[in-house]
Amino acid sequence: MKILITGGDGFCGWPTSLKLASEGHDITIIDNLSRRLIDTELQSNSLTDIYSIEERLVATKKQNWNINFYNEDIKNYNRLFEIVVQTNPDAIVHFAEQRSAPYSMIGEKQRRYTVDNNVITTHNILNTIVDFKKDIHLVHLGTMGVYGYSKEFGEIPEGYLNVKINSTQKDVDILYPTNPGSIYHMSKSLDQILFQYYNKNWNLKITDLHQGIVWGTQTEQTKLNPVLVNRFDYDGIYGTVLNRFVSQAATGNDITVYGNGGQTRAFIHIEDTAKCIQIACENEPKNTDKVRIFNQVAEVKSVKELAEICSKSYNGNIKYIDNPRKELSKNELEVNNQGLKSLGFNPITLSNSLIDDIKFVALKMKSNLKKENILTSPKW
Amino acid sequence: MKILITGGDGFCGWPTSLKLASEGHDITIIDNLSRRLIDTELQSNSLTDIYSIEERLVATKKQNWNINFYNEDIKNYNRLFEIVVQTNPDAIVHFAEQRSAPYSMIGEKQRRYTVDNNVITTHNILNTIVDFKKDIHLVHLGTMGVYGYSKEFGEIPEGYLNVKINSTQKDVDILYPTNPGSIYHMSKSLDQILFQYYNKNWNLKITDLHQGIVWGTQTEQTKLNPVLVNRFDYDGIYGTVLNRFVSQAATGNDITVYGNGGQTRAFIHIEDTAKCIQIACENEPKNTDKVRIFNQVAEVKSVKELAEICSKSYNGNIKYIDNPRKELSKNELEVNNQGLKSLGFNPITLSNSLIDDIKFVALKMKSNLKKENILTSPKW
Repeated sequence: MKILITGGDGFCGWPTSLKLASEGHDITIIDNLSRRLIDTELQSNSLTDIYSIEERLVATKKQNWNINFYNEDIKNYNRLFEIVVQTNPDAIVHFAEQRSAPYSMIGEKQRRYTVDNNVITTHNILNTIVDFKKDIHLVHLGTMGVYGYSKEFGEIPEGYLNVKINSTQKDVDILYPTNPGSIYHMSKSLDQILFQYYNKNWNLKITDLHQGIVWGTQTEQTKLNPVLVNRFDYDGIYGTVLNRFVSQAATGNDITVYGNGGQTRAFIHIEDTAKCIQIACENEPKNTDKVRIFNQVAEVKSVKELAEICSKSYNGNIKYIDNPRKELSKNELEVNNQGLKSLGFNPITLSNSLIDDIKFVALKMKSNLKKENILTSPKW
Repeated sequence: MKILITGGDGFCGWPTSLKLASEGHDITIIDNLSRRLIDTELQSNSLTDIYSIEERLVATKKQNWNINFYNEDIKNYNRLFEIVVQTNPDAIVHFAEQRSAPYSMIGEKQRRYTVDNNVITTHNILNTIVDFKKDIHLVHLGTMGVYGYSKEFGEIPEGYLNVKINSTQKDVDILYPTNPGSIYHMSKSLDQILFQYYNKNWNLKITDLHQGIVWGTQTEQTKLNPVLVNRFDYDGIYGTVLNRFVSQAATGNDITVYGNGGQTRAFIHIEDTAKCIQIACENEPKNTDKVRIFNQVAEVKSVKELAEICSKSYNGNIKYIDNPRKELSKNELEVNNQGLKSLGFNPITLSNSLIDDIKFVALKMKSNLKKENILTSPKW
């Protein structure tokens, strides 16, 4: 298939681009390299030494993978449209969104950047599809965070909730009542409204994948050549929780848990992120009655459980600190992930061997870790 | 009260600004005059001869009303912030959104303009309030169009729908599942998500007024001086349905009904628009548990009923034409409007005397009517 990947230089976008290319798909990446620029803004860094996009592309050629690259900001509608017309893709995979909740809560600039960037990029892609070719399949990376963590709603279904309207006693499926916990998560709730309307009015073919928190750094493909290595964020802004914990433990720092660690969340390994996107691309929705929504998650754990796993394996000390986030201190969580499973997704779950993988990277790259970047989350 | 009105030069914004000023409030208008520029873009015009903002302001001084004006685009965050700090308002009334459904469906430029403008202006105001002073009351003009017209949901409640979650058998109030019918309406669904999150995270005081279709053109205040006259749009893009019908009948043209006219909608007179905003400003929400949502509507009618009223009164011929819109050809509608009523709103309903008012304007201004602008709605 011909697949256009927006944001294909980022933490999820890069390994997904490699995975799809390694499976024989014809890949075009559009990326404005904004994630690299944000490193400069935050004086943060990837624990792994990531290579320039030019070096990365040379390394993909050596693997005989077919990846083209455009250094463009898809907020520029005309440029996006030209590239889509030129590429004529079967599917567009959309990663070109600011993806950190803490970043989106730093201040007004970051709040506005996150909303402007995420709404405009998504809307530009939808407009391109409407005006160029309506049967391009749009695959979007959503977030489990659109659901929030209400106990009243039972197991989290895949996008749609079955309710009885009390005034009419009718049973209907509605888009799950969104309850985001940060500006970032809110931006994905906005995306959902765009998808719902564009699907309704123009019958667009859309898959929205509500992903859990990603852990891990390397995939089968990124391991093939050091130049292909993926990002590893360990800081308080972009580092995801398990990666932060492992890098803290591996470098002799305290494992810092926000609050009591009772927050229960859904997780997925980076290898599975790429695999699920592949499954979504290769299995288009059968009809366009509604937006297809899958939960892209492997398993559910509490933050405390994660901390304890890291503590036991690596003799790390757990330190409970004030939670900078506004969230329930403790919640239960059950998540339905039958959609992707029914299409062949066989989740990788937390295992010592895979955590050892991260630890190996963290230890090897220890000298890159700036301790002052570990506790940088803004309070909200 | 000190009230800042964004979009205060427009069809609803102008008479509301005058109303609030005439009640003794201290008014600041920010407007980039975009509605006047869109007239140039569309080669459309108001049936009434509207005066420049400078002339309008001189006329308000003659009434001893207190209205300041800034010619600014509030998409410019820094400028908006400066003006809010300078003004230090008790309330901000937000009208600065592209407000025509047909305009938003013309093509990609208009789709993108509507979403970018409406999301960014709303989000900039929210950010200003968070960063400057969290207890400013935000009063926003929403639309009944966020609800859609599902028969399964019974009477349209004020913002929140009571449902039973079938998996847990719990009864909860949820934000009404949105089902907008155009990009414009969708932009107000996006606004709702912004309001919900900013209210939840920062306890902002927000009133969202879901308004019906406005009819009429003059209010008590706009009649005081010809220079204060309000817009009267009769064209297929910005003209609202009853105003279009009356101007068609008054000028000897066919009354053109989209489809069979079975579309039932909620209506409100422009005088009541201003009155309801006044009520919302003078009666802040008592708490910030959730966004306060009211339905700003007077009554419910079908498009066919409106056409027949005009036809009978003015001997107009009704012509049923293909519906350019994607909407149900016929629907029932019941709308709850108790919130504003409980605060003193006493709705003006369709009456011959008021329709005669519009007819009078339409006849007097007959020479301004460009026949080629009547059927300009895009198809969607």
